[in-house]
Parts: sequence; C-alpha cells; structure tokens
Amino acid sequence: MKKMGGNGFNNNNDNFDFGGAGLDTGLHEECGVFGIAGMPENPGAGPDADAAVCAYMGLFALQHRGQEACGIAVNDAGVISCRKGQGLLTDIFNEKNLQKLKGASAIGHVRYSTTGDSLAENAQPIAVSHMKGNLAIAHNGNLVNADALREEIELGGGIFHGTGDSEIIAYTIVRERIHSASIEEAVLKAMRRIKGAYSLLAMSPRKLIAARDPNGFRPLSIGMAGGKYIFASETCAIDAVGGAYLRDVEPGEVVVIEDGKLISIDSGLPVKKSFCSFEFIYFSRPDSIIGGIGVDWARREMGRALARENSVPADIVVAVPDSGLSAARGYSEESGLPNVMGLVKNRYIGRTFIQPTQGAREREVRLKLNPLSANVKGKRVVLIDDSIVRGTTSARIVSALREAGAAEVHLRSSAPPFRFPCYFGTDVPDQDALIAVGHTEKELAEMLGADSVGFLSDVSLSRILEGAGCPICKACFTGDYPIERPQSADKNIFQKPIRNL
Amino acid sequence: MKKMGGNGFNNNNDNFDFGGAGLDTGLHEECGVFGIAGMPENPGAGPDADAAVCAYMGLFALQHRGQEACGIAVNDAGVISCRKGQGLLTDIFNEKNLQKLKGASAIGHVRYSTTGDSLAENAQPIAVSHMKGNLAIAHNGNLVNADALREEIELGGGIFHGTGDSEIIAYTIVRERIHSASIEEAVLKAMRRIKGAYSLLAMSPRKLIAARDPNGFRPLSIGMAGGKYIFASETCAIDAVGGAYLRDVEPGEVVVIEDGKLISIDSGLPVKKSFCSFEFIYFSRPDSIIGGIGVDWARREMGRALARENSVPADIVVAVPDSGLSAARGYSEESGLPNVMGLVKNRYIGRTFIQPTQGAREREVRLKLNPLSANVKGKRVVLIDDSIVRGTTSARIVSALREAGAAEVHLRSSAPPFRFPCYFGTDVPDQDALIAVGHTEKELAEMLGADSVGFLSDVSLSRILEGAGCPICKACFTGDYPIERPQSADKNIFQKPIRNL
Amino acid sequence: MKKMGGNGFNNNNDNFDFGGAGLDTGLHEECGVFGIAGMPENPGAGPDADAAVCAYMGLFALQHRGQEACGIAVNDAGVISCRKGQGLLTDIFNEKNLQKLKGASAIGHVRYSTTGDSLAENAQPIAVSHMKGNLAIAHNGNLVNADALREEIELGGGIFHGTGDSEIIAYTIVRERIHSASIEEAVLKAMRRIKGAYSLLAMSPRKLIAARDPNGFRPLSIGMAGGKYIFASETCAIDAVGGAYLRDVEPGEVVVIEDGKLISIDSGLPVKKSFCSFEFIYFSRPDSIIGGIGVDWARREMGRALARENSVPADIVVAVPDSGLSAARGYSEESGLPNVMGLVKNRYIGRTFIQPTQGAREREVRLKLNPLSANVKGKRVVLIDDSIVRGTTSARIVSALREAGAAEVHLRSSAPPFRFPCYFGTDVPDQDALIAVGHTEKELAEMLGADSVGFLSDVSLSRILEGAGCPICKACFTGDYPIERPQSADKNIFQKPIRNL
Amino acid sequence: MKKMGGNGFNNNNDNFDFGGAGLDTGLHEECGVFGIAGMPENPGAGPDADAAVCAYMGLFALQHRGQEACGIAVNDAGVISCRKGQGLLTDIFNEKNLQKLKGASAIGHVRYSTTGDSLAENAQPIAVSHMKGNLAIAHNGNLVNADALREEIELGGGIFHGTGDSEIIAYTIVRERIHSASIEEAVLKAMRRIKGAYSLLAMSPRKLIAARDPNGFRPLSIGMAGGKYIFASETCAIDAVGGAYLRDVEPGEVVVIEDGKLISIDSGLPVKKSFCSFEFIYFSRPDSIIGGIGVDWARREMGRALARENSVPADIVVAVPDSGLSAARGYSEESGLPNVMGLVKNRYIGRTFIQPTQGAREREVRLKLNPLSANVKGKRVVLIDDSIVRGTTSARIVSALREAGAAEVHLRSSAPPFRFPCYFGTDVPDQDALIAVGHTEKELAEMLGADSVGFLSDVSLSRILEGAGCPICKACFTGDYPIERPQSADKNIFQKPIRNL
Repeated sequence: MKKMGGNGFNNNNDNFDFGGAGLDTGLHEECGVFGIAGMPENPGAGPDADAAVCAYMGLFALQHRGQEACGIAVNDAGVISCRKGQGLLTDIFNEKNLQKLKGASAIGHVRYSTTGDSLAENAQPIAVSHMKGNLAIAHNGNLVNADALREEIELGGGIFHGTGDSEIIAYTIVRERIHSASIEEAVLKAMRRIKGAYSLLAMSPRKLIAARDPNGFRPLSIGMAGGKYIFASETCAIDAVGGAYLRDVEPGEVVVIEDGKLISIDSGLPVKKSFCSFEFIYFSRPDSIIGGIGVDWARREMGRALARENSVPADIVVAVPDSGLSAARGYSEESGLPNVMGLVKNRYIGRTFIQPTQGAREREVRLKLNPLSANVKGKRVVLIDDSIVRGTTSARIVSALREAGAAEVHLRSSAPPFRFPCYFGTDVPDQDALIAVGHTEKELAEMLGADSVGFLSDVSLSRILEGAGCPICKACFTGDYPIERPQSADKNIFQKPIRNL
Repeated sequence: MKKMGGNGFNNNNDNFDFGGAGLDTGLHEECGVFGIAGMPENPGAGPDADAAVCAYMGLFALQHRGQEACGIAVNDAGVISCRKGQGLLTDIFNEKNLQKLKGASAIGHVRYSTTGDSLAENAQPIAVSHMKGNLAIAHNGNLVNADALREEIELGGGIFHGTGDSEIIAYTIVRERIHSASIEEAVLKAMRRIKGAYSLLAMSPRKLIAARDPNGFRPLSIGMAGGKYIFASETCAIDAVGGAYLRDVEPGEVVVIEDGKLISIDSGLPVKKSFCSFEFIYFSRPDSIIGGIGVDWARREMGRALARENSVPADIVVAVPDSGLSAARGYSEESGLPNVMGLVKNRYIGRTFIQPTQGAREREVRLKLNPLSANVKGKRVVLIDDSIVRGTTSARIVSALREAGAAEVHLRSSAPPFRFPCYFGTDVPDQDALIAVGHTEKELAEMLGADSVGFLSDVSLSRILEGAGCPICKACFTGDYPIERPQSADKNIFQKPIRNL
Repeated sequence: MKKMGGNGFNNNNDNFDFGGAGLDTGLHEECGVFGIAGMPENPGAGPDADAAVCAYMGLFALQHRGQEACGIAVNDAGVISCRKGQGLLTDIFNEKNLQKLKGASAIGHVRYSTTGDSLAENAQPIAVSHMKGNLAIAHNGNLVNADALREEIELGGGIFHGTGDSEIIAYTIVRERIHSASIEEAVLKAMRRIKGAYSLLAMSPRKLIAARDPNGFRPLSIGMAGGKYIFASETCAIDAVGGAYLRDVEPGEVVVIEDGKLISIDSGLPVKKSFCSFEFIYFSRPDSIIGGIGVDWARREMGRALARENSVPADIVVAVPDSGLSAARGYSEESGLPNVMGLVKNRYIGRTFIQPTQGAREREVRLKLNPLSANVKGKRVVLIDDSIVRGTTSARIVSALREAGAAEVHLRSSAPPFRFPCYFGTDVPDQDALIAVGHTEKELAEMLGADSVGFLSDVSLSRILEGAGCPICKACFTGDYPIERPQSADKNIFQKPIRNL
Repeated sequence: MKKMGGNGFNNNNDNFDFGGAGLDTGLHEECGVFGIAGMPENPGAGPDADAAVCAYMGLFALQHRGQEACGIAVNDAGVISCRKGQGLLTDIFNEKNLQKLKGASAIGHVRYSTTGDSLAENAQPIAVSHMKGNLAIAHNGNLVNADALREEIELGGGIFHGTGDSEIIAYTIVRERIHSASIEEAVLKAMRRIKGAYSLLAMSPRKLIAARDPNGFRPLSIGMAGGKYIFASETCAIDAVGGAYLRDVEPGEVVVIEDGKLISIDSGLPVKKSFCSFEFIYFSRPDSIIGGIGVDWARREMGRALARENSVPADIVVAVPDSGLSAARGYSEESGLPNVMGLVKNRYIGRTFIQPTQGAREREVRLKLNPLSANVKGKRVVLIDDSIVRGTTSARIVSALREAGAAEVHLRSSAPPFRFPCYFGTDVPDQDALIAVGHTEKELAEMLGADSVGFLSDVSLSRILEGAGCPICKACFTGDYPIERPQSADKNIFQKPIRNL
C-alpha cells in the first residue's frame, strides 16, 4: 500500500504519501470505479453533460484511489467505445477526446496496480465483443483463484492480451453468457466461479450491472443524479456529479439498471461481510461514507482510541499530512493536547524528480514535508500517522522533527501493526519488508529514532467499525483471513510471458 | 489504395501520394512486416544491435507500406514484450524505449488499415498468452473468411479486443495449438482454416515462423544478416540492416527458424500463384526485388509498353513524383521523348494541415506538387502516373500543368483502369468512386481536363510480369478473382460493436 | 490576487485557491526568486548537486508563488545559460535539461503575472549581454515608474523584447554599468532610478547580487547551505535545500556574494519599511519565517483576533482549505469552538477542465471542495477564509455548506476588507470587482448568502505584525500608500505593441 | 553547408542531404523569409485565409532552407504578435495557434543556423518595441561587421538577448529611427552601417519593407496574390500561395508596401552584384527562378558542362538524390549515357535516430540511400552529386555502389571544389575539413574510393550563370571575395556569454 504514484524515485518510501500528482488527502492507491446509466433528463438539476463527462468528473473525485492508469467506456445505442491509458485523468482525457466518447451510459476506472505489472494492457475498462454482443468491464479488487480460472480458459483455447483479473472476469462472464438468457444471468453464474474481492461494473448494450463479492471486501455505492443511477467506489464521486447517495451495493448482490429502472438480484452466495478496514484507515476520502459510516468520523474515533490506549505525556499533537489529519484531530480531542500544524506538505511534489544520490534522498522528505520549526521547537510531539508499513519515511519524519527542535517525538499509528499479506486488493509489501513483523514497540521506537511508538489495537479497530455496523476484514493485522487464501502463498507465482508496454 | 497518411485533409485524393510524412518513393500503404531470429554473432559484420533495433531499422525501410500504426515485439528467453501505437516509427520508438525491448528475436509491423477501423486496438504485432505459452503475431493481408472464423471462435466463448484479422489468426493458431505437438503444426492446421491473403510472422518462445497463403498474394522475403535469418515484406528492409536476400517464402510454404536453423514445410495446400500486381505498380519500393523481379525494372517495362500501346505526339515526358518516376523513364526510353522534371514535390508535406476551404483545397496540389513552368511551358506533355483511381488529384495536376503553360497534357497510367474491389489487402474505394468504371478513355480525358487519357493494357501487364516468371492477380482491373470472394460482397458487413480509441 | 493557475475556466473565482496543479497550502501567486552562489564544498552536508538542481529544488518550494512560468540561469565561469518557459517547474525542467545547465552559481524564478501579459517573453530570469559582460536578472515586485524608465531607454535607442519590468531593470543597470567601476555600483545607481517594489537577484560573471527596495515590500531572505550563500523569497526554499536561514536582506540593502564572501552595502536610500501584509495573510507558506515572524503564527494570531473582534454564537469552526487552515486554528483556540474538517479539497484539481456550462460551473466548487456533511449537518458554522475578494467562490462555499445541512454559516475573513488597488506586486482586481467596496457587512452577508460576515480589523492586523516588529503596507485595505502611486492611476496604461506568444 | 537538420547523428556527413524531415529536393539549409502585406480582397482568387496562414504556406515551400527553427509575426492594426520556436513548421504551428495570429500582414522565417548557436533566442522573426512603435524583423544572410556594430550598440547601453544578426539589425534600424521621418528612412540609414549579406523583411505598424544588400548575395523575390504583395526567398513560395512572380528585389533596393502600394527606393549604395552561386548549385528548389534563371535549367547546364569538361567512358549516369537529379539529367543529355535510378532515398529518414556505433554508422548510408543493384550491377557508373564538401558521405555512397556490383564509379561534382570559407551566409566547414583543399583530383579519387573524381570548373560556372545575366559570388571556390571579409578571419571570434536554451 502507499506505493508512490509512478515517479519511481521513492522505492523505499513508507507510510507517508507523496501522491500521483503529489497531492492527496490521506487517501491513496487501490482502484476506483464509476458508472452511470443513461442520460439526465433535466440537465440543470444534475449531470449537464453526457455520460463520459460525468464519468470523468466522478473519477476525478476517485483519483486518489489510483494514479497509474485510467479509462472510460461509453455505450452509444449498443456501440461501446473505450479510451484508456497510463497516467492521470488529466493526462488521458481532454475536452476534445471526451466529446468523441458519445454515449448515454458509461463506466470508468482509475487504476493502482495490485495484480499484474504496470502495463498498458492492464488499464481498465476492458471492452470486448463476443457472440451475443459486446461488454465493458471495470472492477476493483483481486481474485484469489485467478490462476485456476485462467488455466481453464486457456485450456478452452482462450488467449489473453494482458495479465490482469479483468480479462479473466470478462471471459468468465462471456462463457456463461453463451448458455444464459441474459447478461445478468451470466454475471450471476460467473460469480459462482470467481473467488476473492471484486466490486464490479459491467456494461452491456442495454444494461449497466454492478456486482459485489459476498464478502464485500471493496466498497461500491449507489447514487442518483438527474434521475439516473450512479455507481461509485466512494460517495465523494456521487457528490462530485451533484448526485445523492442512496445505499451501498450489498455483499453478494447484483444490481441491474435497465431502461432507467433498478433491479436487485441476490446472488444466493453465502454472505460473510468482511469490509477492508484499510479503506477506513487510509484509502478512502474523509468525506466518503461507507456502509453508513463517515470515514472522517471513523478516523477521529481511531485517534481517540489511540489516545486512550497509547497515551504519553506530551505538549502537542502533530499529524502527518494528509493521511493523519483526522486521527490527529481525534487524538487531540481525547487527550486535550493542542493539535498543531507541525509539518507542511508541498502540494506540487507529485511529478518532480530528485537525483538519486544519498544526499538528495535524505533531503527528499524535507522537500516534500517541511517541519514547521516554530511550532515544534522544544515541544514533546505526538506524531500521528495513519499506519507504519516499511518505516523508512516514518524514520525520516521523526528525524526531521528532531532537527527542527522537537524535544521528544512519540510516533502513533492509527492502524494496528501490519504483519500479514493481503490477497484482496491491498498492496502490502512482502513480510520481510514490514517493519512491525518480529519487533516490539520498543524495538521499533529505536529503529525509527522515536521516543516511543504505539499502534491502535485491532480490538479497538473492530469495536469502532463493527460497533458502527460494519463487519471488517483485518487480516493484514491479524492473519485471520475471512476466505481461503490462494493455493500458492506466493502472490507472484503467475508467470507473465507477455508484456504489452 | 493510396489513402493518405492520417492527416485527414485529403480524403478525396487520388492517384498521387502525399505520404505519411509527406514523402515516399512512389510506394505506399498496405502493411509491412519484419522479423529477425536470434542475435548476430559478429556485430561488425551485420546487425550490431539487438533485435529490436534491427526490427526498427528494417521497418524503417518499410515505412512506405503503412504510416498509421506500428509496433515491435521481442522475445527474451520466452518472455515476449511488445510496444506499439498509432503513428510513424519515429513517433512510437526512441532510443530509450527500444533499449527496453530486450530480446534475441523480434517481429515488427507497420500498418495501413485495410480491415478494421483506425483504432489503437488494431495495431500489430499482437502478443497473447495461451495454454502452452505465448505468441506474437504480425501479418500483411486480408482474410476473406474472417467473419465466419470470428463467429465460430465466439461460439466457443472467445472474446475479441479488436476488429482486425490478426486476433482471429492468433485465436485460430492457439486453438489448434492445444491439440498439436508444436507451434508450426498449429500454424499448418490454422492455414487450412484461414482463407485469403496473408504473409504471416509468428514468434513463439523458441521459434520464429513465417507463412504465406497458397496464392502468395502479398510478398515475404527471406534474408540473412550476421548469421541470422530475416523475414521482410520487401527486400529493401533486408538491405537496410545490411543483410543479404536469399529467396522469397513460397506461396503455401511455412518456414520455421529454430536454434538458428531454417526448416521449410510445405503446407500441402493447393498452390495457385496470384501475386498482387499492384505491388509492382505502386506499393513496393523501386529498389525491392519480388519473385526475382526488380520493381524498378518492372515499372520501366510498364512505361515502355505504355509508350508502345498509347503513343501520342508530344514534346516531353513528365512523371508524377515519386510513384510515376520509373514508368516515365521507360516511356521516355521507348518513345525517345525527353524525360523532364516537370513537377517538384515538397518533401515536408506529410504532417502539415491545410484549412479545409475550397480555395485552400484547390491550392493544395500546388503546395504539394509545384509545376516547373520553365520546363513545361509551351510543351506537349505526356504525364505519367502509376494509376488513376478517383481522378480528383489527376485532374488537379493536369490543371496545374496547364496553368504553368503546358500546350497539351496527355495523361498516361502505368496501371490498367481500376474497376473492381480488392478483397486481398489493397484498399480500393467503392466502385462508384472509381473514375474508370463506366467511362471511355475519351470521357475520362474530358472529366480530367486532359487532352487524352491512356492506360496500360492488362494484357501487357501480364506479359511483363508473368513473362518474367511471376503469375499475378489483376482482379482489381479485370474482376477475375483467383479465389472465392467473401460471401458478402460488402466489405463492411462486420458490425463493430467495440471501438478502443 | 488568487488568479487561477492558467487553466482558464475559473475567471470569476474568488478567495479560494485551486492552485496551478490544484494544490497548495493556502499560499499562492506572486513571483518567487531563488539564488545560490558557488558550489558546496562538502556535498553530503548540503546541496549535493550542481547549482541548477539546487535552484530547481528551491524553486520547487516556492512554486506556490507562481505557476505561470519559470526559469533558471546558471553561471559557468562567466558563461550564463538560461532555460525558461511557460508552465510549472515540472513542465519546463527534467533531469536531462537540468544537467545541461552547468554552472557554480544560479538564479531562478517562478512567475505569476502581475505586470505584462502572460507571454513567453516575460518569463524570467532574463539573460543579456552588454558592453562589460553579461547579466542575468530575476525579481519579484512591481515598478511604479516603469513607463517613464522605458520611455527614457527607448529615447536612447533601446529596444524591448517584452513588456515586463525585468527588462527595464536590466537596461537601467547596464546603462549605469558603463560608467561604473563594478556591477554592484551599477546596481546601487540603478536603485536611485527605479521606484516601487523589487526583491532583485542579479548574476554577473563573478558575482551574485541581491537587492531589496527601500520599502522592503517583498520578502527576500538569506541562507547558507554547504558553505554557500542562498537567497530566496521565502525561508521554506532554504529549508528545501537543507540550508540554514541567516537573516533577511534589509530594505534598501544590497548584498554581494563574491569569492564565497558576503558584502553588505547600504544603498543610502531613505528606508521606510512597508512589508506587504498580504504575504502574511495569503501568499507565503505557513512554514516560512518573514522578518523573524512565523507565518503560521501570524495567521493563528489573526484568527484569534478575529474571534475576539467578530465572535458569533456557533458550534464549529470550519476552514476553507488550505489558505484558511491556520486562521481557523487560531479562531478555534480563542473561541473554544471545535475546529472541524468541514470541507475536503480534491488535490488533483489543478489541471482538469470543466465544460463551461452554467450547471458545470455551479458544480465546480463541489468537485474541488466537497462539504463533509456528517460534520456540518445541523451545525452553526463559523467559516474561516483568508480573505474575501470578489466573493463569487465564497458564495458558492456558503451555499454548498447549507446544502450539506449546516444550520447557519458565518463567514469570517482573516484579512480586512479589500478596497484599494495594489501597485506593488499584488494582483488585486479592479475596484468594481471588489465585493467589499461600498457594502456593509450586513449587505455582504446577504449578497454571499451567509448568516453573517466579518473581517479582521486593519488595526488588529497592524497590532499583530507591527507589534511583532514588522512595519507593514496595508494599502489594499486602507488606501494609505507608503509611496507615491504611478502617475496614471490606471495600471494598464502601457500600450503593448508586441506580443511574443 | 549541408548540415543535418538537428538530429545530431550525422556530424560528419558530407555532400548528401538527409533533410530535417529526411526529405528534400536537393535543396537545403540557409534561411528563408516570407512576407505578405495586407489581406486578399477576393478570397477565391488567392490566399483565402489570413496572413498567418499564408505565411505558413509560403514558409512551407521554403522549409528546405531551414529546419532548425521557424516563426511568424503578424501585424494586426499596429499590434505585432509573434510565435516562433525550434523545430519544423509542423512542430511549431497548428490550426489553433495560427488562428491566434490574427493580422492583415505577416512576415515569417525558417532558420538554419549560420551565425549564432542553435539557441531558442536566435529564432526569427524578432519583434521589438521602441520609441516610435514596434518592429518585426526577419532576414537571410550574414553581416560581416556584426561585432563592430554590436560593440557600438553596447557602448550606448544596449543589451542583447541573443547572439544573432537580427537583433543587431533591429537595433541599428531603431537607433536611426529616432532621427528619421519614417521607418524606411531608418532602414536606408541602417543599410549604410550594416555590411555583408542580407535579404531583409521589416514589418512596422503600417508598412512592410523589403531590403537587399548591394551585392545581392541572397535571393529575395516579389510576388502578388489576391491583389497583395508578397516577398519570398524563392519563387516556389509565391507559387505555393497561388501568387504570381513579379520580379526580384534588386541589390541595394528598398521596397516599401504601404496601403497596398509598392514604392521602390534606391539606397544609393554602390551596387556590385554577387549572387551566391551555391543557391543555384544546391540551396534553392529546382522549380524556383532566381534573377530570371530557372534553377533546374542552371543545374542541367552545369551537368552538361561537367559532361564536356570531365567526360569518362561509362555505361550509366546515376544521380545522388535529390540534390544531384537535375545535373545528372544534364550530364546524361550531353553525354548520351542513360540516366538510371541507381540510388533510392528513404523519404522518412529525417527524424529517425541510429545508435552511434561504428557498425550502425557504416550502415547509415544504406538505410538512407539504398543502391538499386539491378541497375548498377556490372556497370561503369558516373555518379553525379551537387558538390563534395567533407567527402565522408561521398565515400560511403561510392562504397555502397561498389558493394551493389558497380564495375566502376566515377564521381562528378556539379560544383567546383570547395576551398574557402564563406562569410555571407553559407555554412562552409573549416578549411581543414574541406577534402578538396590541398588534394589533386587523383588523390581525391583514392581517398574517396572512386575510379575518378571530377568537378565543374569555376569558369564554366560563371559562363552558365553570368552568361544568363546573373553575376555571381564564387568565393568559396576561388577565394576571391566580392567585399572585404570580417577583420578577424575567424568566424567564431564572438564570445557568446549568454545562451538562452
């Protein structure tokens, strides 16, 4: 998680975000999907442009979920056109090419690679034609039986252009489609075959279908704007197009929009809600609502619990911007310590490059995140970050605060310690890169140069989120996986014999 | 044929080439393929760089065959990497990205669309993975049973990312591969299924395979450089990498390069040589050798025959550069009339744009092709072009020469009149756009503003080429097709439900 | 002020920043300068790269001061090379072209146009050659006698390539240089002739000179890194290159760096300190220190004073991010009201485009700044912005908060009302566009849709800043100009007869 | 001369042109100017677009004269706007930015550097403002007293942004303008001060002025299109905009276009016509007419004379395309030997890159210029090139022809041997790089691997051109300079203290 946005110079960065364009609000990586079915009838009231512009705006609000690639597919009376590429939305789309994406419905995607290389071929949506028409697919998540499905498809003479899950999902749906009466029937049948995490949008000539795996690992919300239905990974995208949030797609549910009407179908698959807790901790925007829970609220509660569990005598609370801002506020409220601007983030950092010398790398953190000396000098600082993964950046921030005169630096993570790999869409590094593996908090403090290090307990995490009605997956903290892991524990077993650059 | 190179302003141009980069040597459109198997052992003697650079250089010599898209796939010990895109080679490749295309073997493609839209998805090579490995495919030509094959593949659950023939060929080979002992066996089996024109290169983890349809519609030559085998659409590409021309791949032959050795396999399909006569007339570079016949020689012979068949009292011979240069030389030699530079071509024209007003369009020909007044003033001109298709450009050139003072302008085409569509890879416009359909030479002269119009007879064309040992297809002139045409006479029956822009 | 970063779609935006790349920390526009004299001796300790990379990093920290154009000039043993262009630093510079900017000293500039059109010709630094050598110039500020100087130079046969002040300054220095023993003597003489605001860097073959006008309108600080001297508009740029802040260049002072030594020269001009108060309110980064005063501290004090002067019964304080963050914190601390995240800013907004329809424009604010409903619903909100200029954006934010459920919205500006034009480098719109002109706070509340509107008093502003030792210019609030205004009250009298696009 | 168009890989190329876009018609480098005064009244008849589009089209026909940089300045009721940059016209201009260049008059320039570095600052036109208005300048040529003029201007306090002559010319005109009643009077006065070669266009708010130095080194023709006057370096540019050629600007003449009327003014400077013979040999397009002499005609005459002076028993004549085409035709006509296509040029070569290994460089000539083996095998070849400068490329072509089977290769140059530097705008390399210096034809044959080498005599050159009424400068062949050379024989004495990249 928290991989950098493709500029390549910060391979060993850690739990602090530089952003694809050097900018985010403590929210990052993963993929984001957006769909809109049909055109608004009253332009003034809602989306006043065609579906592609709507998708562009919605994806824009989801850009923090993926800066590596993006794409939009539109459906114009059955003809599906698709544009995608590697880069930010503003790199791939402009007024001219959006205008060419004519169509009444659209699905879109922003990508941060979790499976597959950073290859052109893996950008989404994918648009394919098949016996009964055509189909565009965009999804967020990670299949755990991708290899087996791929092998089976290949045995049937299938060919793959890329290495991502979306092509496997498309094949699986298409193969079921041949023997199905409708596309939604094919999706339902396919859901019995694909295992893992998926929040899926599928656009056929006449329908827009949303489906969520029975664990509901990844978010997928339903909204309405201008009388038309919207699907989005986060509610902030519904806000961005002036829409209203209705509800989430339920785990195991298939939602079909046809002729402007919403039909809900229960897949019948056994549901075991296991929402990714890291969505609350880090991925999602603070203004999004997931499962009825506000993300900012959840983070503040984490900060509050952290203050209760891991209090330390100190003078001020300092957030690592932007991902630690909400938790720091909670910590401050609970502890009574003033919440102070102690680090200033350079908002233009994203696309810069730094010479890869040791000296430059040391100064990198200073260029991106400058301590506000006047506020920290002589102070005992509680430094709040959302999580600690590799620890390299944490160490640099601690060191920068000390150079700026902080008397003590107590590092607190609003997430429990990361100790286990994720197979459901969060890109956790190998275990040997996880600093929390095999180290006590005291050892970590020494390694990171902090006076103390503390984490939110996974018990508190559960209490906050499950207490508010959202059963979570916290396997990356506990190793307790809600579904079977891939047969091979190695995430990279898949031999990638082709690379479309 | 002779569509313009994508700049879009010359939709109604005719038999005179502006070129993708505004430049060519009377050679144009269609696709070009290039392949090299293995690395040179002695860098000084031949290709001194890796396979990708070799392919780049070879394709560079074939750029006149397609300016719309291009790509190179390399094979690095079984891992196939591919880069492709829409544009000229110099748009898509640079030193940096070529260096990333590591590999000992390579295949490449330059594309001029004859089937499928001008879409990103249709660029070649295509690189796919399948049950028994991976495969890259590049081909030149046009299948006549593409629709039937596609339908069959879709019935088996296949999905298509694009609309071109190459994906169909790949599928067909892969499906045969499952039940075949080797990739070449799969290619041979696939050849029994695919009908039409194809000069095909297929690269598997260990082999490079070349195959040519049993009619041998499109060229494919074999060369050697630095001890390694080369395949190229034209011999000029073998020259470009410092190689030596060995022979052509025979119609119906499959050539396999494995471990540095060449194995020839007879497909056993009934061979009926029908080489595209338009390759000699227009497509190929004058310095290429096809079937043992030099292109420049053939064109000069056409010019000579034209002089004999269509002589007219005149003072000078003027070629439309560059495609009419060789024929004009032959006409001059045979007629004894001096061959004069009467039109000067602007070599920078390719990428310019002209405002689409009537006045500008009228002046367009002047910007691209300026009459050399001093040489034509008061002269009776025999104007030699390679062919007359729509006639619009011919009319403008005739008019420009008259304005420059030519006393008479006698237009002569070194090709017979175009009257029938081509289904084998030459992009002939619809019949109602073909000016020669339904008009006598006298009527054509009036329509084009010329004092007379004359064509090479198809009898002479056959005499020259078949007399030199190359049985030809001249269906576009005679309507006599060497193989069955597609069931649907309409080339555009295929409904394209997806468009990857 | 607060013009948008060149994307052109937000002409009528107001007091809320979208940023050149959609991102800033409540800091904006104006120009920024950076200079470094000589190379570091011990690379590990400080700038480990050449002067150009140092300048790039320093300017990067100043990017918020100008996103329109940028440039760097280097001095390599007397040869001055300059690269500049329109765009962000990351648009103009890359590793390759920075490497070509060899040199031991450098000056750089980021530009937000205050004088002159947005033309290529007006990018800085300007590098010129003259009788006694060559010279590069970069400055921040605005001359008030530019027209008179220009006329005089033209009378002497001078020609101008652009419309900016820097060319006038260069000419003035060069003309004095002819009759001066040294470049610094020429600068001192030129300072007697140029009137207005300027923080100037001049690089000659052997010297780097910094000069500040006798009012000290614009900031200019001195630092040291790796044993070499640095000049920068803000101290955050000194931090960015790992340097230490020494002091500011004094109003009326000329500082010369030669052979690694710093020489201070008093210009002898009558000093009347009048530092731009808007630097504290808006322009500068919160982690910068100006005249010994921390910007974040000053803003918090403004927020505190605002709470005392303009208290209102409310439930929460909400900042307009990022420019209102510090003041909101101060207001919260003083009032005791909780400081809540009520608006979330999209960090990717900078380079997007929105269709210019009415509906889209209405939704623009929502795309860029999304209310966090859960936090504001049913609450009486004190909304803190740094200033209110045109009022259009303020009105939209107020409206968005109401839609999100806020019970009351009380808008508070940490700056006094804007009522007068600035002639010293702040780009204030025409008076008739200033919403505060001729309206009471009550009227403003109605116009902006707020329950109440309040401003910091200019008395408090003076008390805070002058009390901390920094005499300020607050002419834009009071109309009390510290020096004579331009003869023509119209800022745009200069006829621009040439435009280098 | 014959430097390559900026692709940098062919530093040591010689007398064979690869072109900026890899394409030309035996015409190259130097600069080209184009001007149009006022708008056409009847769009159908002539230029149907605004002045900028006209200039674009005219410059397009002059692109062979310079591929390094280009620019257009337009005059819109006194406001002069200018766009320029480094690259081809198609790199710098597009429909959108041409539309922004509104104006009734325009001047434009294509640049091949002869003085000054390849720097952004040296692109033309230059547009400046001065006491009495504004002025845009574009010129072709080279001043011989540039250093003295520059020094004098600098003594008066002048500053220079670039290193080219155009800024010196602009200053000189502007300084005279102060004391002159009109811009044309200022131009006339300036002409008394500037020495050397210049074909100059100057655009003031109300006038378009053309001036040519009293030697008339460089061409400048007058045309008319749509009732408006045109100036162009070559008549092919007048053709390109549908105009009619009227006459040349005479050496020492100043032509003023004001209110649609042409006024001719004799500068009174002593005229000594010395037209650059290399314009006929190489620079100009074959369809241009200079001083009433057709370029193709002149080249054919040179070829004829060459055949008479340097006959050799042979079988065929082969031209080096494109620059040797016309001369080869003349040689063929005179000698009776058939003129055969023996070398085929790749029209796409311009923008490619080749890895700079020895092997690649050896093969470079093969990639760009492929021998047509069938035509040369076993033949005794007379190889006609326009000139032999460094000899490196000649050697490679000779070698390539031998490899292709030529029995003998006799190299003939339609120019006399290059032995002396040019100070008037032709970029001749240093004398020690000129292969003809100090070597007999026999030695040259050995050095170049040819069976014999022969040149046109300078006596014949004079006879042809002066006999047709055009007194020429042939100093590069004879060392007999028509005007005094620069005081310093070294062309590079000017120390360039600034470089605007």
